[in-house]
Amino acid sequence: MSHNTFGHLFRVTTWGESHGPAIGCVVDGTPPGIRFSEAGIQAFLDRRRPGQSRYTTQRQEPDQVRVLSGVVPGEAEGELVATGTPIALEIQNVDQRSKDYSDIAQRYRPGHADITYDIKYGVRDHRGGGRSSARETATRVAAGAIARLVVPGLTVRAALVQIGTIAIDRSRWDWSEIDRNPFFCPDAETAKRWADHLDAVRKAGSSVGAIVEVVAEGVPAGLGAPVYGKLDADIAAGLMSINAVKGVEIGDGFEAAQLTGEDNADEIRTGPDGQPQFLSNHAGGVLGGISTGQPVVARFAVKPTSSILTPRRSIDAAGAEVDVMTKGRHDPCVGIRAVPIGEAMVACALADHYLRHRGQTGRI
Amino acid sequence: MSHNTFGHLFRVTTWGESHGPAIGCVVDGTPPGIRFSEAGIQAFLDRRRPGQSRYTTQRQEPDQVRVLSGVVPGEAEGELVATGTPIALEIQNVDQRSKDYSDIAQRYRPGHADITYDIKYGVRDHRGGGRSSARETATRVAAGAIARLVVPGLTVRAALVQIGTIAIDRSRWDWSEIDRNPFFCPDAETAKRWADHLDAVRKAGSSVGAIVEVVAEGVPAGLGAPVYGKLDADIAAGLMSINAVKGVEIGDGFEAAQLTGEDNADEIRTGPDGQPQFLSNHAGGVLGGISTGQPVVARFAVKPTSSILTPRRSIDAAGAEVDVMTKGRHDPCVGIRAVPIGEAMVACALADHYLRHRGQTGRI
Amino acid sequence: MSHNTFGHLFRVTTWGESHGPAIGCVVDGTPPGIRFSEAGIQAFLDRRRPGQSRYTTQRQEPDQVRVLSGVVPGEAEGELVATGTPIALEIQNVDQRSKDYSDIAQRYRPGHADITYDIKYGVRDHRGGGRSSARETATRVAAGAIARLVVPGLTVRAALVQIGTIAIDRSRWDWSEIDRNPFFCPDAETAKRWADHLDAVRKAGSSVGAIVEVVAEGVPAGLGAPVYGKLDADIAAGLMSINAVKGVEIGDGFEAAQLTGEDNADEIRTGPDGQPQFLSNHAGGVLGGISTGQPVVARFAVKPTSSILTPRRSIDAAGAEVDVMTKGRHDPCVGIRAVPIGEAMVACALADHYLRHRGQTGRI
Amino acid sequence: MSHNTFGHLFRVTTWGESHGPAIGCVVDGTPPGIRFSEAGIQAFLDRRRPGQSRYTTQRQEPDQVRVLSGVVPGEAEGELVATGTPIALEIQNVDQRSKDYSDIAQRYRPGHADITYDIKYGVRDHRGGGRSSARETATRVAAGAIARLVVPGLTVRAALVQIGTIAIDRSRWDWSEIDRNPFFCPDAETAKRWADHLDAVRKAGSSVGAIVEVVAEGVPAGLGAPVYGKLDADIAAGLMSINAVKGVEIGDGFEAAQLTGEDNADEIRTGPDGQPQFLSNHAGGVLGGISTGQPVVARFAVKPTSSILTPRRSIDAAGAEVDVMTKGRHDPCVGIRAVPIGEAMVACALADHYLRHRGQTGRI
Repeated sequence: MSHNTFGHLFRVTTWGESHGPAIGCVVDGTPPGIRFSEAGIQAFLDRRRPGQSRYTTQRQEPDQVRVLSGVVPGEAEGELVATGTPIALEIQNVDQRSKDYSDIAQRYRPGHADITYDIKYGVRDHRGGGRSSARETATRVAAGAIARLVVPGLTVRAALVQIGTIAIDRSRWDWSEIDRNPFFCPDAETAKRWADHLDAVRKAGSSVGAIVEVVAEGVPAGLGAPVYGKLDADIAAGLMSINAVKGVEIGDGFEAAQLTGEDNADEIRTGPDGQPQFLSNHAGGVLGGISTGQPVVARFAVKPTSSILTPRRSIDAAGAEVDVMTKGRHDPCVGIRAVPIGEAMVACALADHYLRHRGQTGRI
Repeated sequence: MSHNTFGHLFRVTTWGESHGPAIGCVVDGTPPGIRFSEAGIQAFLDRRRPGQSRYTTQRQEPDQVRVLSGVVPGEAEGELVATGTPIALEIQNVDQRSKDYSDIAQRYRPGHADITYDIKYGVRDHRGGGRSSARETATRVAAGAIARLVVPGLTVRAALVQIGTIAIDRSRWDWSEIDRNPFFCPDAETAKRWADHLDAVRKAGSSVGAIVEVVAEGVPAGLGAPVYGKLDADIAAGLMSINAVKGVEIGDGFEAAQLTGEDNADEIRTGPDGQPQFLSNHAGGVLGGISTGQPVVARFAVKPTSSILTPRRSIDAAGAEVDVMTKGRHDPCVGIRAVPIGEAMVACALADHYLRHRGQTGRI
Repeated sequence: MSHNTFGHLFRVTTWGESHGPAIGCVVDGTPPGIRFSEAGIQAFLDRRRPGQSRYTTQRQEPDQVRVLSGVVPGEAEGELVATGTPIALEIQNVDQRSKDYSDIAQRYRPGHADITYDIKYGVRDHRGGGRSSARETATRVAAGAIARLVVPGLTVRAALVQIGTIAIDRSRWDWSEIDRNPFFCPDAETAKRWADHLDAVRKAGSSVGAIVEVVAEGVPAGLGAPVYGKLDADIAAGLMSINAVKGVEIGDGFEAAQLTGEDNADEIRTGPDGQPQFLSNHAGGVLGGISTGQPVVARFAVKPTSSILTPRRSIDAAGAEVDVMTKGRHDPCVGIRAVPIGEAMVACALADHYLRHRGQTGRI
Repeated sequence: MSHNTFGHLFRVTTWGESHGPAIGCVVDGTPPGIRFSEAGIQAFLDRRRPGQSRYTTQRQEPDQVRVLSGVVPGEAEGELVATGTPIALEIQNVDQRSKDYSDIAQRYRPGHADITYDIKYGVRDHRGGGRSSARETATRVAAGAIARLVVPGLTVRAALVQIGTIAIDRSRWDWSEIDRNPFFCPDAETAKRWADHLDAVRKAGSSVGAIVEVVAEGVPAGLGAPVYGKLDADIAAGLMSINAVKGVEIGDGFEAAQLTGEDNADEIRTGPDGQPQFLSNHAGGVLGGISTGQPVVARFAVKPTSSILTPRRSIDAAGAEVDVMTKGRHDPCVGIRAVPIGEAMVACALADHYLRHRGQTGRI
């Protein structure tokens, strides 16, 4: 994975900061003939868009995507057909208030990338966090909307499964709940508890972490590779590359450390269709770096945003010791908006491995 | 990360199966002038070598490394000087007993990559697990021994911090204990409990998972990149690419989900040397994908090996339903030997990012 | 070199077709602190711009570049400072006349990529040649303007040295002539002959090939690598990737085949500054894939454009045999506009190798 | 193209110097199920092997290849079946006479990479030229033997078409002559003239350049990509990466500069099979970076080796001015042995693009 590019045959290169004129990405390697539309991409972007509830930043970002290349018009209204050449996607930045950030231009927010950018580059776009802004992730969601179409029959969905110390009750998991609450929560009762909790967090000017679970269904068996080019290694890289993510799991993840070999092994029978049928999915759909045909299940942990109203001890660019608090409009729980981003990264990894598998083996 | 290559400027390509004549790797991009020796690499390999206690597989693998290219002799006895060209490292395979595996040639071990290899490739080296064998990881440890030398002043150490449900007591952490017990355990008392537990697991023909923690000290600030080429994303990919790993964390990892922004933010003061001094390290040494100069802390979860003596339900290559148990000589806890491998992958990621950072910015 | 990306540490990804809303590129890996301006990039684009004389296509393409990301404002008017994050450059398409191309939508122009695009992708943007349009090269020139700044002290210039069978007289080479004629010709007398010749070619609705020579001065010694990552191999790839290029040479190129070892060897003395001083430059500044410190000299051959007014035998997309002639506004000699593009590709290769060399060796 | 790796999906990484214990390569991405044998690879290596006539170096290098990984035994004697995992190929070095090189350890041969290696790396394996030795190319030939099998129906052949100023007569081209003379010359009469000429060159302790032509037949239409990932750009990079190569052409190459659009355009009719049938092949089988289905034709120029007996002016590593002549056993015309190497590089590029095309488009 290079500086700003994800993937090998299906490659996404993103660019842009929150306070420049636009952000965007180049999706290279899309199979020719794939059909999509700006409206279809927009639907995914709208799920990530801030300002939709009081639990996300109140910035207004219409995030209207434009397709600038790599397509010809299809027959249907608004339909686009990929030509196989690079698809450039672009989103204008509209609601920038640079003055909001003036007082943190020279002061490093604890827990934020301000200081490491300055150390690394010696120059930094402090407005809105520059490249570290969650805004970059809008372009990932746009790319993911195309990635989903690369693997026939693929469905990638994600849910928020924990905010702070409050986890969902998995026995109540209902995918249809996801769009009925502002948290992408699959458990209606937990969603209510989260609402109360986040109201308190928000009022305190604080923030809180979260855990997201991504489930990809319809993944063909055989995607991945045995050693470094493992499907799960690339998913891990993709998810860990999302802002504020500090942990990634596949299948049972860290729980697997506590299992015995007997418990962990997913037994196999032959299904009615003559295909292998696994009796459980501790593996999360990946064995030896290669997909089994079961759902691919990944989880990732999002730390609380470092933009809080409580003053914290820090230094400024000149090394002087200061106290820092972050005004402006921020998410009390960035984990919420990470849900569609996690879906996008898993979709991109699957699209890339689908093409790589077809390339090397010709078996799909 | 390509099929079998890890890294960009410092690139490691591994090859080999446990039952061919040899395994090896090509380390490309080593800075010229780096001095090392076969004995120095061997020291790291010896730590990973099986058969050193009753808690690892009883296979005898001397794992004698040879350096075949990329060096000229140095002045000291056995000293080698890197020329900047590819360094080929090779280890002969000696203790192969192919017959041990005859009865699993056609039967898929539940929880093992047997079945996904067959689905993906349609042909498979079943002897010793082929490419999925832990044996491949010896070449990573060898490469890691060179990677460590690329970053001046770098120290990378790892410890086993949990076996099954038994975690160490962090208040007793003592790095000097690591080499005094067969588990790389930094806590002498927990090591005793693990010994008892693993004796029972081994006698039962079972296996158990574990958690490894890697700590890299002396990491210069500034390594990494803001988006996909994040230091932590590449570390996550490297660790997830180790056999049997199902989860990866940086810093507080999944615990970060439970923190508030106040708790999570590592406050900063100016140290006696005029440099930024962090008052805590929840971030695990990485902010916004870039190293802070603090220790880089990563953890990974290793599932229990799927080679167990208890019969499990499965199918064979023809789709017939069978029961499978794995005779042969296996590790009751592969997490133990994963300790030096985890060190190696972190060292490789740091070496690569050190060169990339120097390349782009010239600031180190 | 991937689908649409050139370079490793300094990476250029281009996108866009001549008849979409815009074209552009993402320049990733620029060292932070590099200072440039839109006007500075524009100056290079203006040299490539069509419609400046009767010898290039009469399309009016103002080719106004915008910098969308990766910079903060500098102190001087219009000055931009690279932050080290991806720099997105964009050029709107303005003078599109899709109807000009209607009659070749289904008919393959002999010598053109129409047919191979259709075979490869099964779908094609026929308007203006889609991705095969020379228009894509505007983005390369823009990227090259930044690449030039990456290597301190670098100068990259190119000249047209042959049109059809009329070559320049090298004894009259004068770089200052380059901008005084519409051909980038360093020999004023030959420029006059070319003018007459091209007038005839243009009136006949025909086209003609050309040879471009690129000279890079101020290239530090040591850039490149011994085997595949050779500086000259990457320059060859970059130049051969320009539309219509069919041959590439370094130094004496194909003439070297006729030399003896005595003639070919560039003898070396110690210069007044104590540095190696080569007495000739048959090598074109590259020995064993690595720069010598002498000027890097590369030449490339551009075939005549296939868009001509003379009917040629061909087939249409349905396989029916047809005659094809290309109306519309085309270059009688695309080699002219290839001059700044060749400079850009050499600059990009040098920038990439400069960063790679600094990364691996730290010696510059 | 990275330091020592060629290709993307079909990737070849080479290592080794002429005076270490061995040289080798790792071939990654081979489709599973491909069948080959050590003897089959050996046949290609034997063609490149020196010491077979008085026109190549008299070093005796048996160049016996071993396959160390990535295969399982096939049914036939000696048959190997690729498993899809990395194939390691290794060749022991046997006839090393390090003392031959003692007097050039500190003296830079004009025209040789000695000096640039020292400048770049500051340390160098001077024995046999280290990594710049033609010996590295044996591993390319071995890799090429596998690459040929990746594209069904592919034939890649090459011939020497010019030595010094003596070119073949193309009207006498006869592929069956290739193996009847020590020059891979397709024209028996020219081969005789070359024999006389090279005898004189050899006796004079001199050397001479040459031109090689590679022809690949059975290349499916559609391989390549429109912009940087062009088939011809990757072929150019591969050929230019061969030692001593200074120029590369596709199809008419530099001659295309002299053609008009009418002459250059390969007209198209519909063949008896209903497929497009080109009436000429000026394009060399590549249009817009994508294969047409016609034979891919590439040529490259090899400079005379710099190892000659005539003293030339140079400097030593300390900067002192010296005269240098190269004793030892060298090729009077390295172009001869470049013939099978050129085949190998074209085969590797085609194999890679075949897999990439299948991956992205699924159309083959």
